[in-house]
Amino acid sequence: MSRNQDRPFDECRKTTITKNYTMHPAGSVLIQTGDTKVICAATVEEKVPLFLRNKNSGWVTAEYSMLPSSTNVRTPREASRGKLSGRTQEIQRLIGRSLRAVVDLKKLGERTVWIDCDVIQADGGTRCTSITGAFIAMVLALNKMAAEKLIDELPIKDYVAAVSVGIVNGEKMLDLDYSEDSNADVDLNIVKTGAGEYIEIQGTAEQKPFDDEQLAGLLKFADKGIKELIALQKKIIDA
Amino acid sequence: MSRNQDRPFDECRKTTITKNYTMHPAGSVLIQTGDTKVICAATVEEKVPLFLRNKNSGWVTAEYSMLPSSTNVRTPREASRGKLSGRTQEIQRLIGRSLRAVVDLKKLGERTVWIDCDVIQADGGTRCTSITGAFIAMVLALNKMAAEKLIDELPIKDYVAAVSVGIVNGEKMLDLDYSEDSNADVDLNIVKTGAGEYIEIQGTAEQKPFDDEQLAGLLKFADKGIKELIALQKKIIDA
Amino acid sequence: MSRNQDRPFDECRKTTITKNYTMHPAGSVLIQTGDTKVICAATVEEKVPLFLRNKNSGWVTAEYSMLPSSTNVRTPREASRGKLSGRTQEIQRLIGRSLRAVVDLKKLGERTVWIDCDVIQADGGTRCTSITGAFIAMVLALNKMAAEKLIDELPIKDYVAAVSVGIVNGEKMLDLDYSEDSNADVDLNIVKTGAGEYIEIQGTAEQKPFDDEQLAGLLKFADKGIKELIALQKKIIDA
Amino acid sequence: MSRNQDRPFDECRKTTITKNYTMHPAGSVLIQTGDTKVICAATVEEKVPLFLRNKNSGWVTAEYSMLPSSTNVRTPREASRGKLSGRTQEIQRLIGRSLRAVVDLKKLGERTVWIDCDVIQADGGTRCTSITGAFIAMVLALNKMAAEKLIDELPIKDYVAAVSVGIVNGEKMLDLDYSEDSNADVDLNIVKTGAGEYIEIQGTAEQKPFDDEQLAGLLKFADKGIKELIALQKKIIDA
Amino acid sequence: MSRNQDRPFDECRKTTITKNYTMHPAGSVLIQTGDTKVICAATVEEKVPLFLRNKNSGWVTAEYSMLPSSTNVRTPREASRGKLSGRTQEIQRLIGRSLRAVVDLKKLGERTVWIDCDVIQADGGTRCTSITGAFIAMVLALNKMAAEKLIDELPIKDYVAAVSVGIVNGEKMLDLDYSEDSNADVDLNIVKTGAGEYIEIQGTAEQKPFDDEQLAGLLKFADKGIKELIALQKKIIDA
Amino acid sequence: MSRNQDRPFDECRKTTITKNYTMHPAGSVLIQTGDTKVICAATVEEKVPLFLRNKNSGWVTAEYSMLPSSTNVRTPREASRGKLSGRTQEIQRLIGRSLRAVVDLKKLGERTVWIDCDVIQADGGTRCTSITGAFIAMVLALNKMAAEKLIDELPIKDYVAAVSVGIVNGEKMLDLDYSEDSNADVDLNIVKTGAGEYIEIQGTAEQKPFDDEQLAGLLKFADKGIKELIALQKKIIDA
Repeated sequence: MSRNQDRPFDECRKTTITKNYTMHPAGSVLIQTGDTKVICAATVEEKVPLFLRNKNSGWVTAEYSMLPSSTNVRTPREASRGKLSGRTQEIQRLIGRSLRAVVDLKKLGERTVWIDCDVIQADGGTRCTSITGAFIAMVLALNKMAAEKLIDELPIKDYVAAVSVGIVNGEKMLDLDYSEDSNADVDLNIVKTGAGEYIEIQGTAEQKPFDDEQLAGLLKFADKGIKELIALQKKIIDA
Repeated sequence: MSRNQDRPFDECRKTTITKNYTMHPAGSVLIQTGDTKVICAATVEEKVPLFLRNKNSGWVTAEYSMLPSSTNVRTPREASRGKLSGRTQEIQRLIGRSLRAVVDLKKLGERTVWIDCDVIQADGGTRCTSITGAFIAMVLALNKMAAEKLIDELPIKDYVAAVSVGIVNGEKMLDLDYSEDSNADVDLNIVKTGAGEYIEIQGTAEQKPFDDEQLAGLLKFADKGIKELIALQKKIIDA
Repeated sequence: MSRNQDRPFDECRKTTITKNYTMHPAGSVLIQTGDTKVICAATVEEKVPLFLRNKNSGWVTAEYSMLPSSTNVRTPREASRGKLSGRTQEIQRLIGRSLRAVVDLKKLGERTVWIDCDVIQADGGTRCTSITGAFIAMVLALNKMAAEKLIDELPIKDYVAAVSVGIVNGEKMLDLDYSEDSNADVDLNIVKTGAGEYIEIQGTAEQKPFDDEQLAGLLKFADKGIKELIALQKKIIDA
Repeated sequence: MSRNQDRPFDECRKTTITKNYTMHPAGSVLIQTGDTKVICAATVEEKVPLFLRNKNSGWVTAEYSMLPSSTNVRTPREASRGKLSGRTQEIQRLIGRSLRAVVDLKKLGERTVWIDCDVIQADGGTRCTSITGAFIAMVLALNKMAAEKLIDELPIKDYVAAVSVGIVNGEKMLDLDYSEDSNADVDLNIVKTGAGEYIEIQGTAEQKPFDDEQLAGLLKFADKGIKELIALQKKIIDA
Repeated sequence: MSRNQDRPFDECRKTTITKNYTMHPAGSVLIQTGDTKVICAATVEEKVPLFLRNKNSGWVTAEYSMLPSSTNVRTPREASRGKLSGRTQEIQRLIGRSLRAVVDLKKLGERTVWIDCDVIQADGGTRCTSITGAFIAMVLALNKMAAEKLIDELPIKDYVAAVSVGIVNGEKMLDLDYSEDSNADVDLNIVKTGAGEYIEIQGTAEQKPFDDEQLAGLLKFADKGIKELIALQKKIIDA
Repeated sequence: MSRNQDRPFDECRKTTITKNYTMHPAGSVLIQTGDTKVICAATVEEKVPLFLRNKNSGWVTAEYSMLPSSTNVRTPREASRGKLSGRTQEIQRLIGRSLRAVVDLKKLGERTVWIDCDVIQADGGTRCTSITGAFIAMVLALNKMAAEKLIDELPIKDYVAAVSVGIVNGEKMLDLDYSEDSNADVDLNIVKTGAGEYIEIQGTAEQKPFDDEQLAGLLKFADKGIKELIALQKKIIDA
């Protein structure tokens, strides 16, 4: 068996990132991973949620949505259905946790960074691509605040990026596209820091359980992919 | 007083249209009018709403949304609030009516054309830009159906495009951007056909009522703008 | 073709207005236009919405509803469905804008005038009848405040009334009843001031587009109708 | 202590009933009890709820609402809040049960009678007044069906009416108005048939518990009131 | 005809009460009446609802729910449906009123006692069992507050308990189980104080109206049952 | 540092399981892990969700809820708030996936197994305890179906159980209680089969990222815990 465009099993799709993609938010990017395209934006609000009032801490929160036309078969609009699906909430919580893990919330001050990830076109891996892109949008927004002397130093502790790995027809694969993902026996989403440590591991094997050896192989693939993505993030941010 | 970039009062902003902007929907465009950017997509579903079952007629319906990051100040996400605002519903209904007015629903057959207009970046005129772009997305989708022999002929009766006009500081203006729109005394959205006839007139003067003469002047401006937009639509569709 | 009861094409149905129809609200009327009957009530609340706090301005807002039993076929209750239809929201927004256009919100002070329009029986034209009646209810409420020395002068800049016009089977008509409205090719709702200026024009031609000449004829009909309604308003208020 | 207009403690307020108050529903009345005014309408739908399908039985269901302007202080609209209050649901269920108790659902056939009770003006006792009026609206609708030969005989087993009784400042009273109701220690709503039997007793003494003797006195008052209301119902229906 | 386990018509099922059933709430019990099992918990919050702010009064409020698995046929979860049924709201309001009737809200101070009644297993009489159990949970919570010197004296005016009575196949019965309740012609829920006075009477006869003599018999049965339950409450609380 | 009751770092809390805890559902247990208590129930419905109709496959779905009184500070009731939290949805989806992974859905036939996990008392690990208990409830329900000859053989492919592991103050720990969980830097929930393979790994390190060595240690702890739980499941099911 082979992958689309003869991609090797341990190779990521090409990722490109366009900085400052839209004009209004403090930070924004268009990130494309293969045919997956996500607009990530970061906006800073000068207040914190109720549970953090007067606690000398900031907050980072994320929202995620897919355009109805972003998927192969049109996805009904959650705003029209009047509620968020469980999947959307799970992804929003994951993005928020992943970014908070690399932000020094004390140094951020009593502010909220709102992250919006809107999927324009989906071909697998939208949650991981969102995390990788959102990190840059957030850094752009915080850089802008630093340039405006609203904060003394960048409250960022490390880089963060994410990638999916999985087992499809018995083969371990890095960065699954939609055709692979929808046939996977095992599907893991891995979020790691620039220091190479784990922030999140989310693996599920509804179709076919996996063992420690397979897990080790998948984690190795993920490590390779995330290292490449963080190298790209550095290049984009420093550009 | 003068407009941004010394635009004459009776001149539209530059509009550009990218066909087949995303890969999944049957028809899609990215339409940009000045700094306003909207993704319009058309999807065909092989069934009709309940009230049209077995009536030998098709349907066209539209949904509209703004990305939270598309506006100057972040707009709360309607999916998170759990309901559509009155403004969103008004715009969705307007887009749907405007497109249905130029479609022969009998010839369409028992099908629904779903129109999705998602505003990526907003600088005034998003509902008019949505209508102008959605028409092309719909034609692309129907052309595809004709090419696949699913329909015998294109069930389209005429072109349709829309533009805003208004009175700002006493001056009549064509195609208001956000800075003009938010200061307008009078604000009209006009939808017309290729034959130059009206489909919709929506005018409001919450700040300062207007008279028949002012109305006539505004309608003349709108006519000029819509003629230019329909000329552009023809060029794009025929390309 | 002829209209019910041989009404001429340019003639309104008979309108009657009962002042102080219910005992609790500060101002209320029962307005009947032909078989359309609406209770309009105005209540003054000593606070403003959040976005107006400390801005030295008042607010006027409207709510509209049809009794389930007011229509030919019973209309499901929006309170039971748990949400307002797009149509209801559109009408509520229209009534609110129309009344605000003739109120001096600064002179009103930090107060909200709540307008409730509840349709008891519907036979076409309920939104226009609501506006015409709501204006009187509002004036009655503000008169009461002035009598109680809560405001120095009446914060009303002009009269406002509304009427529908349309094209049915090729004929232009003034003040459509339900049987006409449901067969109309073109349907316009016009809101004008006592000075004869436009506050709102909402025209839609989902069935058949119209040209400038037809528009001019319809606007002339509307002007006649609104002049008659404002004359009636004056008589009722001065009574 | 004395009651408004020196009403004796065991006397109901004057009740008047206007038949066929609105033109669309199959049966309708305006019922006034003192200053309380309710429009009751009955509509017949040729289907039954899911749980009764193919069970050879009809259904009677009721909805109840107060116009926002019907109360002393404006009541927020439940349609705008997006949900029914507990009080509204309790009253709707009470009205439905009371009417079903006197309808032979088998003879009704597979149909639903929708009862709409809309309070135009409230001065205490709206739920009891709704039941008393709704019974007549329902009979009018069923009479119409019988006249159209849609049913062979009237599927009505008995009359039904309702009245409130209570203890205010230690005095037992019949048919409480709002000023009495809001000061009552004990508040009972009683629903009885033409045969003088109970369908519902709902009594609450949040302020001050009551004993068997007081209960007996209140039930006697209620019996007197309901007998008078049923006499009135007979007169109206036979008129 | 006979009852399950040959229970006499005027006999309650066996009730057992386990104090401090769960470890977190200030007061809690598991109450079992025959096969009906309810967890009742009381939690004290140091604030009152908006309408009581600065009025020097406390509040008692109740919530009620059935586990989906508590009923013979699985009951859909109200949290998943997104709204409370009318039945649930009615029961919640009844429990709240019943407990408030025996609490001196002034002495409670500006606090809210939250009562949670969660039905683990249902076999008829869940609302009455909830009231009887909730009273003990509330007393346990208030005793704890008194022990911690947060209140000077117990703000409790009397005991309160509840029982159902009804007519099944012509027989008056005390404390109906589910098989009886679902066949009852008449169903009354009675709430009384330790002094033997009524707080609530809720009787419904959707199937077959009842007369004064039957009512008197039912009330006598209820009195017997409630006396036994209050004797049990005393024993449990004093233990 | 030491754990409550001097529990070794690699030791689970005591788990006890009561079979057939409630009388109505096809299968039910009360499972207690330390102070965490969950009622797990399984109900079989003779139909499948829409997306599985006529696909010759069954389904397993789960719902999860915490009693408001189950937590240290009272948790607001989701049914009253009108929507499920993101956390609840995440847990429901996890339980459903975990059970489906060990069920042969083809052999189950066109049926849905509803799993209800209701937390009576919470002290950490409620989602893992729910999975471990729900598996037994499901087996009990399927055994009953087999006994009634509704299915030929038990459609179960393997055992499944779950446990949490984490890093608290630098120490790896097995089966975290609430005091540990709320101070954990790293928190993993592991779901494995009787064959020792992974179904789910969900790890999050919002406070402090972790490395491969730490991950390996945690997975070893989890393996020990799950082996013990599956041994217990076997004993209970075979009893």
